[in-house]
Amino acid sequence: MTAPCPPIDATHDPDLRSWVDSANAPGCDFPIQNLPFTRFSPDGETAPRIGVGIGDAVLDVGAVAHLFEGPARDAASACGAPWLNALMAVDPAAQQALRAQLSALLDARQARHRAAVAAALHPLARARLHAPARIGGYTDFFASIHHATNAGSLFRPDAPLLPNYKYVPVAYNGRANSVGVHAEVTRPCGQVRPQPQAGEAPVYAPSDRLDYEVELGAYIGRASSAGQPVPVGDAWNHVFGFSLLNDWSARDIQAWEYQPLGPFLGKSFATGVSPWIVTAQALAPFRTGAAARPAGDPAPLPHLHDPRDQQSGGIDITLEAHLRSARMIAEGLPALRLSQANTRTLYWTVAQMVAHHTSNGSWLDTGDLLGSGTVSGPEAGSWGSLLELTRGGAQPLALPNGETRRFLADGDEITLTGHCSAPGRARIGFGECRARVRGAGDVTRN
Amino acid sequence: MTAPCPPIDATHDPDLRSWVDSANAPGCDFPIQNLPFTRFSPDGETAPRIGVGIGDAVLDVGAVAHLFEGPARDAASACGAPWLNALMAVDPAAQQALRAQLSALLDARQARHRAAVAAALHPLARARLHAPARIGGYTDFFASIHHATNAGSLFRPDAPLLPNYKYVPVAYNGRANSVGVHAEVTRPCGQVRPQPQAGEAPVYAPSDRLDYEVELGAYIGRASSAGQPVPVGDAWNHVFGFSLLNDWSARDIQAWEYQPLGPFLGKSFATGVSPWIVTAQALAPFRTGAAARPAGDPAPLPHLHDPRDQQSGGIDITLEAHLRSARMIAEGLPALRLSQANTRTLYWTVAQMVAHHTSNGSWLDTGDLLGSGTVSGPEAGSWGSLLELTRGGAQPLALPNGETRRFLADGDEITLTGHCSAPGRARIGFGECRARVRGAGDVTRN
Repeated sequence: MTAPCPPIDATHDPDLRSWVDSANAPGCDFPIQNLPFTRFSPDGETAPRIGVGIGDAVLDVGAVAHLFEGPARDAASACGAPWLNALMAVDPAAQQALRAQLSALLDARQARHRAAVAAALHPLARARLHAPARIGGYTDFFASIHHATNAGSLFRPDAPLLPNYKYVPVAYNGRANSVGVHAEVTRPCGQVRPQPQAGEAPVYAPSDRLDYEVELGAYIGRASSAGQPVPVGDAWNHVFGFSLLNDWSARDIQAWEYQPLGPFLGKSFATGVSPWIVTAQALAPFRTGAAARPAGDPAPLPHLHDPRDQQSGGIDITLEAHLRSARMIAEGLPALRLSQANTRTLYWTVAQMVAHHTSNGSWLDTGDLLGSGTVSGPEAGSWGSLLELTRGGAQPLALPNGETRRFLADGDEITLTGHCSAPGRARIGFGECRARVRGAGDVTRN
Repeated sequence: MTAPCPPIDATHDPDLRSWVDSANAPGCDFPIQNLPFTRFSPDGETAPRIGVGIGDAVLDVGAVAHLFEGPARDAASACGAPWLNALMAVDPAAQQALRAQLSALLDARQARHRAAVAAALHPLARARLHAPARIGGYTDFFASIHHATNAGSLFRPDAPLLPNYKYVPVAYNGRANSVGVHAEVTRPCGQVRPQPQAGEAPVYAPSDRLDYEVELGAYIGRASSAGQPVPVGDAWNHVFGFSLLNDWSARDIQAWEYQPLGPFLGKSFATGVSPWIVTAQALAPFRTGAAARPAGDPAPLPHLHDPRDQQSGGIDITLEAHLRSARMIAEGLPALRLSQANTRTLYWTVAQMVAHHTSNGSWLDTGDLLGSGTVSGPEAGSWGSLLELTRGGAQPLALPNGETRRFLADGDEITLTGHCSAPGRARIGFGECRARVRGAGDVTRN
């Protein structure tokens, strides 16, 4: 078996500083210890390139591929492809070599090739960022037991969790072409029942219960093989990196359609991702074991359990959601933080998701995206959707300017952010996943 | 609005005969009126080509692209691409011109270019057939009310149909990389509960309830646009053609996992398609209106209803499932026909599926595959799965040699076939979707 997780090495040294000054600012998402990947177009250009974030700039890696040596050269050359998938598929050792040499090239203590690297830096302020990977398969999990409990209690107050929850990392196939870096999300139309309690017939109308969900996205790097389930202890080797994910949801469409085959049009209109993928390598210092299961909970079945606890694939990432209404934007008010939660509280780890996904002999492809499901913690300030925060719309949320929200209004802007921090470690940020709600337009009820 | 369905023209003339003699044999799947597309490799070659079936041969269309004229030349040139998607995306008028000129080139009354065409014919007996299209999205519907009732009655004898069924063409996203032309399907492992009634904990083990489902697959040709729902009367313009589809299902894995987010690992291990796509053009004479709804059923909502009944997108295709056990094969026994049903009995038409799929503003891409869901009719001989035929395994099925089946055994071969026939029309066949069950091997329960 290959090494189950990337090493913590000199590239993680919290004392490292970059000659790109903005990368050294406190609170910067992209210090030299991060080096996340994206796909970008400099202003005025159309052909996207693969880049690495450093401070307030992005480095065109393909343009400086000749500066890399050994296996890192292959990895850097893969950054000349139009999508990140080419890099994601290369040998993890080559990816690691690329990271080490990128770190060296940007290190304030080193001057080698600095002029050439500086010439390939583009200010983020003058670049458009795109979805980095071609996603063949998108799977959305339901890994937060707090979210599952909150959502379930709206439908089944006495038994919010279904019997399979503590055994099965429940998931469904999402629609891959819904995933993108969206500046706007149009309110979907669909079959909804304004008064479902009365058993009334549905109408086709704009959703009245549009919601967001804060999730962590995990991108598959090395593909797995058909008929060969990935052992949970080996799962980390197939994870290229992580991004923010907003699983936009139309609760009224979903509630009416989802029995018995699960969510479909209530989700497929938009799935937002941040344009940055923070690599598994960058996050190596923030690995955790699986969350401790409460006494009385069943142990995971053996194929979902790694006795080496550190290898169970948990991770410590803080995720936040923020809202600004159109009026707040016009009034110059800052966004309201709706929630802050941490992925270490998930009931199922990313490694368990990978092991489960492949346990029936199906395989994961390079570029496949796994969503964690809404990341909610135990207390209200950590709940990752309006469904939970407003108890299904029953308890409207107050905005700082006196507005209230049951669900999202046209013009609302939702921004997800994420970061990792720990004593003695550089802060690793995820950038933003930000989009604004656009009205459904003149669609008529019928 | 463009023409809502392809015309019935000279290419459908039942008196047409081909100079490829085998195409004129009674009962042949591929007469000159059919002209289905596939992707094939002649024996000893690796690079696949796009071909058209005629009798017992396949014509390498790209190799004779120079014989076509006008828009048909563009369509024929698209057949030089490695996948059928290139042809599927071209203008339907060009596809229609290609069909007309293919028909003329193969017409027994015409001798033009016959030697060149004959040189590009490959015997099917010496060709391997592949999945024709790259599938970005695979969606599986639940359009047979008979199947929905049969399956639902196993769980809810008093109320088999859920309240949304007659309003929503219920569907879920399948896993696109599960779709293929499989010679073998390996019995999947997963979390199963041998005695679910006792509330026992699951084990990870080979599925004991492996099943098939007879479905019709519809391939999207021209993509639709984001934010622009396809009107039901225009849906046919986005359907390139149809194939057989076997939605292999592990009922025990599915039963345990599917709440609340729908089927996942119980389906994602394999989805079989036939290597042939019968075009919407070839099937124009077999269009029907939507199935008549029983008195008292709600009318479809306006966005799912085309007042021009002939345009509702129903279709008249007979589908059959056949089983041969390993012993039957060894004993030289013919396959047992398990079911025969017709897609005209579906509660939701393919046009309604397309309209529903895009009704929330999401779009369909060229090469996307829509499954109809199991096609079952009202009587037992038309039920398209063992789940229905054996009432969930409670009433084993007798095979002609004395064997019995609750669900599929290792070595069983399932073959799906399909055809259209009507008085005064040439019979149009679909070829076969055939695969054999391979054992799970030495996977141990744990």
